[in-house]
Amino acid sequence: MDLSMFFASDNWAGVHPDISANLSRHAAGVATAYGDGDLDRAVYRRFSEIFEREVQVFFVATGTAANALSMAALNRIGGIALCHSEAHMNVDEFGAMGSYTGGARTAPVPGPLGRVNPELLDRAIKRYSQDLAPAGQPMAVTVTQATEVGTVYSVDDVKAIAEVSRRHKLPLHMDGARFANAIAATGVSPAEMTWKSGVDLISFGGTKNGCWMADAVVILNPDVGKDLRLLRQRAGQTFSKARFISAQFEAYFADDLWLRMAGHANQMAALLAETIEDAPAGRLAWLPQANEVFAILTRETADKLQAAGAKFYEWGVPQGFDGHLGDKEAIYRFVASFATTTEEIDRLGQLLA
Amino acid sequence: MDLSMFFASDNWAGVHPDISANLSRHAAGVATAYGDGDLDRAVYRRFSEIFEREVQVFFVATGTAANALSMAALNRIGGIALCHSEAHMNVDEFGAMGSYTGGARTAPVPGPLGRVNPELLDRAIKRYSQDLAPAGQPMAVTVTQATEVGTVYSVDDVKAIAEVSRRHKLPLHMDGARFANAIAATGVSPAEMTWKSGVDLISFGGTKNGCWMADAVVILNPDVGKDLRLLRQRAGQTFSKARFISAQFEAYFADDLWLRMAGHANQMAALLAETIEDAPAGRLAWLPQANEVFAILTRETADKLQAAGAKFYEWGVPQGFDGHLGDKEAIYRFVASFATTTEEIDRLGQLLA
Amino acid sequence: MDLSMFFASDNWAGVHPDISANLSRHAAGVATAYGDGDLDRAVYRRFSEIFEREVQVFFVATGTAANALSMAALNRIGGIALCHSEAHMNVDEFGAMGSYTGGARTAPVPGPLGRVNPELLDRAIKRYSQDLAPAGQPMAVTVTQATEVGTVYSVDDVKAIAEVSRRHKLPLHMDGARFANAIAATGVSPAEMTWKSGVDLISFGGTKNGCWMADAVVILNPDVGKDLRLLRQRAGQTFSKARFISAQFEAYFADDLWLRMAGHANQMAALLAETIEDAPAGRLAWLPQANEVFAILTRETADKLQAAGAKFYEWGVPQGFDGHLGDKEAIYRFVASFATTTEEIDRLGQLLA
Amino acid sequence: MDLSMFFASDNWAGVHPDISANLSRHAAGVATAYGDGDLDRAVYRRFSEIFEREVQVFFVATGTAANALSMAALNRIGGIALCHSEAHMNVDEFGAMGSYTGGARTAPVPGPLGRVNPELLDRAIKRYSQDLAPAGQPMAVTVTQATEVGTVYSVDDVKAIAEVSRRHKLPLHMDGARFANAIAATGVSPAEMTWKSGVDLISFGGTKNGCWMADAVVILNPDVGKDLRLLRQRAGQTFSKARFISAQFEAYFADDLWLRMAGHANQMAALLAETIEDAPAGRLAWLPQANEVFAILTRETADKLQAAGAKFYEWGVPQGFDGHLGDKEAIYRFVASFATTTEEIDRLGQLLA
Repeated sequence: MDLSMFFASDNWAGVHPDISANLSRHAAGVATAYGDGDLDRAVYRRFSEIFEREVQVFFVATGTAANALSMAALNRIGGIALCHSEAHMNVDEFGAMGSYTGGARTAPVPGPLGRVNPELLDRAIKRYSQDLAPAGQPMAVTVTQATEVGTVYSVDDVKAIAEVSRRHKLPLHMDGARFANAIAATGVSPAEMTWKSGVDLISFGGTKNGCWMADAVVILNPDVGKDLRLLRQRAGQTFSKARFISAQFEAYFADDLWLRMAGHANQMAALLAETIEDAPAGRLAWLPQANEVFAILTRETADKLQAAGAKFYEWGVPQGFDGHLGDKEAIYRFVASFATTTEEIDRLGQLLA
Repeated sequence: MDLSMFFASDNWAGVHPDISANLSRHAAGVATAYGDGDLDRAVYRRFSEIFEREVQVFFVATGTAANALSMAALNRIGGIALCHSEAHMNVDEFGAMGSYTGGARTAPVPGPLGRVNPELLDRAIKRYSQDLAPAGQPMAVTVTQATEVGTVYSVDDVKAIAEVSRRHKLPLHMDGARFANAIAATGVSPAEMTWKSGVDLISFGGTKNGCWMADAVVILNPDVGKDLRLLRQRAGQTFSKARFISAQFEAYFADDLWLRMAGHANQMAALLAETIEDAPAGRLAWLPQANEVFAILTRETADKLQAAGAKFYEWGVPQGFDGHLGDKEAIYRFVASFATTTEEIDRLGQLLA
Repeated sequence: MDLSMFFASDNWAGVHPDISANLSRHAAGVATAYGDGDLDRAVYRRFSEIFEREVQVFFVATGTAANALSMAALNRIGGIALCHSEAHMNVDEFGAMGSYTGGARTAPVPGPLGRVNPELLDRAIKRYSQDLAPAGQPMAVTVTQATEVGTVYSVDDVKAIAEVSRRHKLPLHMDGARFANAIAATGVSPAEMTWKSGVDLISFGGTKNGCWMADAVVILNPDVGKDLRLLRQRAGQTFSKARFISAQFEAYFADDLWLRMAGHANQMAALLAETIEDAPAGRLAWLPQANEVFAILTRETADKLQAAGAKFYEWGVPQGFDGHLGDKEAIYRFVASFATTTEEIDRLGQLLA
Repeated sequence: MDLSMFFASDNWAGVHPDISANLSRHAAGVATAYGDGDLDRAVYRRFSEIFEREVQVFFVATGTAANALSMAALNRIGGIALCHSEAHMNVDEFGAMGSYTGGARTAPVPGPLGRVNPELLDRAIKRYSQDLAPAGQPMAVTVTQATEVGTVYSVDDVKAIAEVSRRHKLPLHMDGARFANAIAATGVSPAEMTWKSGVDLISFGGTKNGCWMADAVVILNPDVGKDLRLLRQRAGQTFSKARFISAQFEAYFADDLWLRMAGHANQMAALLAETIEDAPAGRLAWLPQANEVFAILTRETADKLQAAGAKFYEWGVPQGFDGHLGDKEAIYRFVASFATTTEEIDRLGQLLA
């Protein structure tokens, strides 16, 4: 496959050489199974350092599993999880959350640019928990950081949502499939972005950022998610040779590799955005803040780019999109990864010029 | 309890004397258990006559159970049932549907006056089934007849929704907790209102209309819902002495008692609406079509009525409500039943005057 | 249908006239829905009197629902409920328990004559909870009183099982579909038979003993089953016109009707047993203690009886049955109810003679 | 950790160097995500060659997930899966199967030496599907190959079970967590051991045999398991960078590495068995046929070995074990893997001598 102009997704990329090398380094020898080996424990400690707090780490198979297990750990009878209308959990996870919880569901809350609006969140929680019409029990609020549309919640944004959650006694979950990109973009510490701002647990993703398969649920607030170990076991996601994941995370955190990879992806996205904005044939749908760029192109232009080998997808128009979209235009998503090169972007720019 | 001015709900009323008498008539003697007795079979045949088609009838414990079992019978992996935002299934059933299906969920579709809008329905189905972002599998469309806000779908309304459902190969379910009121209001035959217009199965409710406890799922299209018998058994809703329900339905259908009771409730609602519209202190939020009236009153007026013994509840303002609502005003729901009297309404009218 | 010689089941009988009459008496007027009416509350108090303790009462649709909801209220992740191999929950409820709990399961424990053996129970709990091979988490012990094979646990039997349960910190549930028969047979008080001997909650059945449909979960130990109200709501078993069930229980408990009906059924079973034991053509498989008689007959004799109009079923040979069973013989179950008459038994005796 | 005398489990071992190397080889470059890349497809074809038939391959996270998803794909309402009492699915998977299926359960069938007895299987299926006492619906039979106790089903054994399954129209699943060991031990072809003998689908495990994490459900009979793709998606086990697993399997199958590794483990187990049998202080509980050895030792001997650094676990006495077990003796399990060395065994032998 042609490497050039690959912007389809960050989960088509391979793995960073450091991660691959570390995996090989740990290939031989026996180690306690099921995540209780020496390397596993060292990696858990590393997580605690990064979050500046004693945390609990549970490796899982995918980001979807991380989200679904997080919800299972927060589950209530007739449970309702409030999330953004475009949250991965709401539109991309094929009912995983409903299945893991035995019937809990998402209740979508709108908000501009992929971010949950705190006021609408408050209203939705009230609506779903009113006495006369019991839809069920609100059980959690979840936000995606960075969001599905390439934007980032500021610390103040997170705090505003946490304030609403706390008022309703609901735990706050963060879907951090692209957490590294959000941290690299804002320069805020992981602790500040999460538990110091009211986040109780996070789906921590490494897979989209240069790992093979490295996802985890990280419990930040020890008062929530106490059943996670057993829920994961029941879900068939307690890996016997867990050091396979530990070895990835060990390299991921070494010398800030994770932030260097995410920072590179963000920079490439910024360059891509600039390139598109500068081109007569395209413009940005909104300003990118992490590693995803959403551009408005005519379908003709998009076809031309794809015919020339560029890989990217059309994106549905978000609810409440207030930009202008011509008859022959659509919104397209371009994703940069740790492996994206300036050459690829230059070539795209030449085609757009 | 004071009978006068009771408009809180149609499920606080008792049972019609004919139904009570028939129950006593069938109290003695043995009969085959689990719904296979002679009386049970006679009642199933009566359902087939009423729907002008061979139908299958499954008694269940409540309207919520009827809806949840219907969905379980239409269930798909990652299932999504499209319904109105204010549908009972979406906001009133405490996650029953998610639990019965092991994780399917509702996807709310807006529409004015409690009715699903066919175009928005089409758009929602497409959104949830798009390839790139698989939210799951749309599995059914469900409409409530009469609706939660006292309106009624016309036959053409039902056909328009059925047309969208069929285009997407989705079965169409009708929540008929107040089906009798819709039939009495429109004068349309049960067959015309359902399968002749594209409805595949119906939650058929008698409880709100003068029975003790008489709810059923009625399969109109033999191609759907084949697992209902087993699903009901697993749900612990296969009644041993099923003739208890059959005896109610036998009386319910005799001499059109069901339509006479529903017709009376509708008439009382119409009188109530007139009374409110005529009163200086109140006005209708929208025009009632069945047995529920939604009125706009000042909170002061509502308090006065309730202090005088009237029973009724405040109702949340529906999404998309386009009427005017003053600062001190709210919407209140008044429900008429088979047992409502003109005296009760007159007394309310005097208080409002 | 011919009433004579009806021994197929106690759930084919109708209802006692007192219960029917009380239902009619409560037919008119409005009452608070969902089990919060005056009559409902009075009946809950009556339950507390009968159990000599403040209890919580939850009406449900069937005995299967009572068992399944009890288990749902005791549910744990990977939950395992220990019960007798022939318990209704294990062999008769079509996976209701698994479905209500989202995947918990029964683990059968053997024991002679339908009673769980305390030592084997202890061994089974240990086996399922061992560290190296985690089958899941034992979550409850459940016993059936009277048992599926017409025997009764003595108070000492119950205490012995409760002792094992307590040692493993497991709650003890009693399936009391035929609780009245056990109480009538032993003369022990309901309190002594349950919470005073270590039972935490009970499926309390009235349906098999002269009611239309009157089943309930009764929480005896306030520390268990706290979610039952919400679980029942999610299960679609919160009845709007709950007084329909309350009216049955009101009459059921008045003047000890429940014990008189169960006592009569037990007496009829004793007479039946005597009749069979006296007949040359039959003998008892084991001694009956409640309202079910298990007889060994040749298939020829059974056919003759059935040809003459008697209704009864063949019963599978229980695991560990140590009686003698000839080649042409089988075990048959005869059930007596509140409505069984001596005439029916006499006629059967004549046929057997 | 000291490598010597490590017999605790085959899932504590690392990965074979060839597998590690192949993973590194595929680390760079982009590839279609979610198992649709070129390497993925090549590996699927390789599976078809190995099974001499067009098969469908679904990578999953663990052996437990493979089993649970297989059962979910065969699921029926009130489903019952018949398996050996000591099957991993029955005693080791923490309710995964119940959770994945929304309430199906295992029904244990006894049989000597870890193998399901065909006659007892037949009897159990009949018992659970009898009309009068519907426990639910038998939905599948599953056998473990090699078994939990180190024995192997012969082709005739598999055929005898398949014959019973087919008679009852039940699909036959094989839990092949140690399938390679069974193939290496018998010399029978994978096709002969599975679909040619009546097996419809298999949990195919590579993790215990020298991979990092390489498990798959392989559909052998295209008429079963049609929903597996969607079920896996809902389970959060559709890996984005699936080539990580493909790369392992590519190396696993190259030059029969998988059979060479399993053959070595089996040989080491044979040597271990010989060593134990020759020692005065120990004897075999039964003859090993694959890579697990079960020995009877006094607790004193076991303590001594463990004190000297040997790693192995005590094993519960199987139901129906007919050997002699002294008061101070217990059964211990020793597992050999691809990495076990003769030196380790020699050292153990010296300690035993």
